[in-house]
Amino acid sequence: MTASQFKSAPEPTLRRLPRYLHLLFRLREGGLEDVSSTLIARELKLDPTQVRKDIEYTDIVGRPKTGYPIEDLIIAIEAFLNWNNTEDAFIAGVGNLGSAMLGYQRFKKYGLNFVAAFDTDKQKIGTQIDTIPVLSIEKLPDLANRMKIKFGVLTVPPQYAQFVAEIMVEGGIKAIWNFAPCQLKLPDDVIVENAQLTQSLAVISRKLHEKKILGSD
Amino acid sequence: MTASQFKSAPEPTLRRLPRYLHLLFRLREGGLEDVSSTLIARELKLDPTQVRKDIEYTDIVGRPKTGYPIEDLIIAIEAFLNWNNTEDAFIAGVGNLGSAMLGYQRFKKYGLNFVAAFDTDKQKIGTQIDTIPVLSIEKLPDLANRMKIKFGVLTVPPQYAQFVAEIMVEGGIKAIWNFAPCQLKLPDDVIVENAQLTQSLAVISRKLHEKKILGSD
Repeated sequence: MTASQFKSAPEPTLRRLPRYLHLLFRLREGGLEDVSSTLIARELKLDPTQVRKDIEYTDIVGRPKTGYPIEDLIIAIEAFLNWNNTEDAFIAGVGNLGSAMLGYQRFKKYGLNFVAAFDTDKQKIGTQIDTIPVLSIEKLPDLANRMKIKFGVLTVPPQYAQFVAEIMVEGGIKAIWNFAPCQLKLPDDVIVENAQLTQSLAVISRKLHEKKILGSD
Repeated sequence: MTASQFKSAPEPTLRRLPRYLHLLFRLREGGLEDVSSTLIARELKLDPTQVRKDIEYTDIVGRPKTGYPIEDLIIAIEAFLNWNNTEDAFIAGVGNLGSAMLGYQRFKKYGLNFVAAFDTDKQKIGTQIDTIPVLSIEKLPDLANRMKIKFGVLTVPPQYAQFVAEIMVEGGIKAIWNFAPCQLKLPDDVIVENAQLTQSLAVISRKLHEKKILGSD
């Protein structure tokens, strides 16, 4: 176990690391071999010191002048985010969004592996979506316990979100990625991450509104 | 034009306002008529002063002791985010995620009205998804100009994101909600909001990883 595994990074750092990754993929495709925190900062319009501090969490050591080898930096960030391992996950709610999540192959690249989906709709139970079986929600707690699933994705309508989240917790799930636009009330030892789609929409809606009012267009 | 329309709120405020809204909907359903910033802060585990400052951006005036009438506060926040008006939008990329977005009725509640979808897949062009026509991507710039569309949603694979974003800008689109995990390079007067799904996944992945390492489970 290395020291880095014990370092708890602040949330803003965790949110910036994937942005560095996306940039590094692009630079690697472009044939670049090394990258400096200054270059990353310039490309992403961030502060270079901030970028350097974020990267230090991954325990990679930069070299004077050349910076970091891109390949090593990619591996270091992916390891830090645990995206080089596969985490088995359950998803509850197979509507439009849930189906999209199941079909989104990219999640596998980020270490997220859906092993089963759950719904209450009898039309959907017993079917498969992208080879993932859809099961009755009643089976979730027992199956989560037996398969030792710790990661749950919540894509049910908001009025059922609290109820289904509690079922997940009953099954021993310790981290819930919540796509329902509502605040869950769960025991403190359960990690809840809200996908913040409406928060993101709020930012762009208001900015466009301001732009129109100010007539800068 | 009121003063509030000119107030430019910081992004963290814009991201918190929808969380207040979701809570207010729940409290209203529970029969509550008034709410204080202290109650909102406690429910969402935020600082009361922060909550009060955020709400002040909407220009609503609280009353001593009782706080804000819930109904008025909902209206004030929705107006501030421009969610009481409808913004016509184009969406490019009708894969899993794009289709889910089109089928997600809730966006209408948040003022987002899809009027057309665009793709390069000939199997999809000419069809409809939830009554929204799917058109060839080539038609986007001209149609955006003629219909004065200012809002674009980008749900294409990352390797096409930059190209399609430029097509949107060519059509006069001024705000792009980007779901592709990549950094877009566009003129400074174009508002780009990244949906941050991978950022959100990074936070929960790392936190669960830390929890497992520390054996607090």
